[in-house]
Amino acid sequence: MTFEVKILGSNSASFAFGRHHTSQLVNSNQNLFLIDCGEATQIQLLRYQIRYSRINHIFISHLHGDHYLGLIGLIFTNHLQGRTEDLHVYGPKGLDEIITIQLKHSDSRLNYNLHFHQIDEENQLLFENEDIEVRPIKMDHRIPCFGYVFKEKERKFRLNREILPNSLSKENLIDLKEGKDIVDTDGKTWTNASLASPPHLPRSYVYCADTRFHAEIRPQVQNANLLYHEATFLNDMQARAETTFHSTAQEAARFAAIHNVRQLLIGHFSSRYFDVQPFLTEAKPEFENTILAIEGQTFEVTPVQPIKVKENNVEIVNN
Amino acid sequence: MTFEVKILGSNSASFAFGRHHTSQLVNSNQNLFLIDCGEATQIQLLRYQIRYSRINHIFISHLHGDHYLGLIGLIFTNHLQGRTEDLHVYGPKGLDEIITIQLKHSDSRLNYNLHFHQIDEENQLLFENEDIEVRPIKMDHRIPCFGYVFKEKERKFRLNREILPNSLSKENLIDLKEGKDIVDTDGKTWTNASLASPPHLPRSYVYCADTRFHAEIRPQVQNANLLYHEATFLNDMQARAETTFHSTAQEAARFAAIHNVRQLLIGHFSSRYFDVQPFLTEAKPEFENTILAIEGQTFEVTPVQPIKVKENNVEIVNN
Repeated sequence: MTFEVKILGSNSASFAFGRHHTSQLVNSNQNLFLIDCGEATQIQLLRYQIRYSRINHIFISHLHGDHYLGLIGLIFTNHLQGRTEDLHVYGPKGLDEIITIQLKHSDSRLNYNLHFHQIDEENQLLFENEDIEVRPIKMDHRIPCFGYVFKEKERKFRLNREILPNSLSKENLIDLKEGKDIVDTDGKTWTNASLASPPHLPRSYVYCADTRFHAEIRPQVQNANLLYHEATFLNDMQARAETTFHSTAQEAARFAAIHNVRQLLIGHFSSRYFDVQPFLTEAKPEFENTILAIEGQTFEVTPVQPIKVKENNVEIVNN
Repeated sequence: MTFEVKILGSNSASFAFGRHHTSQLVNSNQNLFLIDCGEATQIQLLRYQIRYSRINHIFISHLHGDHYLGLIGLIFTNHLQGRTEDLHVYGPKGLDEIITIQLKHSDSRLNYNLHFHQIDEENQLLFENEDIEVRPIKMDHRIPCFGYVFKEKERKFRLNREILPNSLSKENLIDLKEGKDIVDTDGKTWTNASLASPPHLPRSYVYCADTRFHAEIRPQVQNANLLYHEATFLNDMQARAETTFHSTAQEAARFAAIHNVRQLLIGHFSSRYFDVQPFLTEAKPEFENTILAIEGQTFEVTPVQPIKVKENNVEIVNN
């Protein structure tokens, strides 16, 4: 099942060196979710040939312009392009007022329903479908700011369809998907492992928006398959990172390491840096599996395979 | 003296075919004025290497997103880049509320003074310096909408410095600049035409934002050196132009013709048109001197030269 993140914008504050304001597109089983929507996100979506109408859920981290100023335009353009499907926007208090006042002054009555979901507290269930759940995670920034945790639901055992005998009943199939051994309609006993494979572990993508670094363990981040963490500065600006409630690449990597994540994606680069390679150089000693949020690139939320299976006793090694 | 208009965005409503939302930069004697500021105007300014800090006056026509959604970002970026000089924003009622609420929710205290000038009526003097005056002109759109008239001030006669005799007093020079004949300190009489040239006629640039076509004469537009008039549609959509309070290329050209302007610039093209050449084809039969608002291009507000001079009796032909 597809679970991936496309980077639409990777810069902080100003536009610079062809880098845009923050925005990411999460694709979970062909359902598209937008995280943050800096100015010109519309243009980035056009550039990467993503139809606006496919996005039904937009998650805004906080009300600094480089994270939300493209939202109103996207709302208007959806309207002008004849959207009829509901659009859900999630974000901190105040965003509804910003949207409402602009709809009012443009005398716009949208031809679709716009639902605003205010984020009040960490971990509240914002969205779920049969594949994933989305919950907010609190950041430490100058104004209220939330990250988002996209977590797959527990999945069932996968049937090895090529080798299933004809003697199985509907109930046998259900039991196999639950990981049980079965007795078929001929009275023969089959171990689960002989006909099914254990499910992938539920994957998670954790988006940590603008934040100061803290060493405390956040349970929602632990063992994430992919963690995005802002890395606005290099070590030369560590003091500034602290006073502006941002992080350095090294701090992002330290955060990844203490949470035992599988892979770290860093972005939100300051406009003072033309070359972003030094972000990798400073992050990797703390956390080797770090990658740069390069615009236009798509990063898979890599599944962790169960690698040892003993009969019905499944031993899963998180490598 | 420089008086020119650079097109930063030429499309209406949506981004399409590389065309951006409306924005124009007026350069009057190296003073820069922004007219409208659609989303991503910041990026367009970067593209054409125009420093944000050089713009001190921004004129917004109306509160449809494609004309102002880039303003808040530009205000924020000016702040982040350390601007200290005052910034003046002119626009219809409501724009101040939109700005204020976004400054509030981002907890921003700008490190420069932002002055909002609300436009209440046509022709009020919004701005003047020694070179030009700027006044609003009312449009006929679905919501309150103003165009802007940039008009040069009357200029003085120009001294032909190469041939000025040494016998002239300070008062003689002042009189020559006023177009008078003089008697110099040696008692010799000089005609004004022998030592000075008549001034260029004051030039005007008229920006007609989103509007329905009307045939009535607007005195502020008459004889404009350069008229920008929106041309959202071609003739095939004439009915739609009427109902959406927009104009066709042919209507823009008719408006130019009845106002005897020198040159017409058309833009605000609908996203339904990939090729904008037909806009010219449909405009030219009504008004030959029509040009397309192509992004990145700069159009001079062409002066009208006084072409016949008879002694002190100046006959100016507006060609």
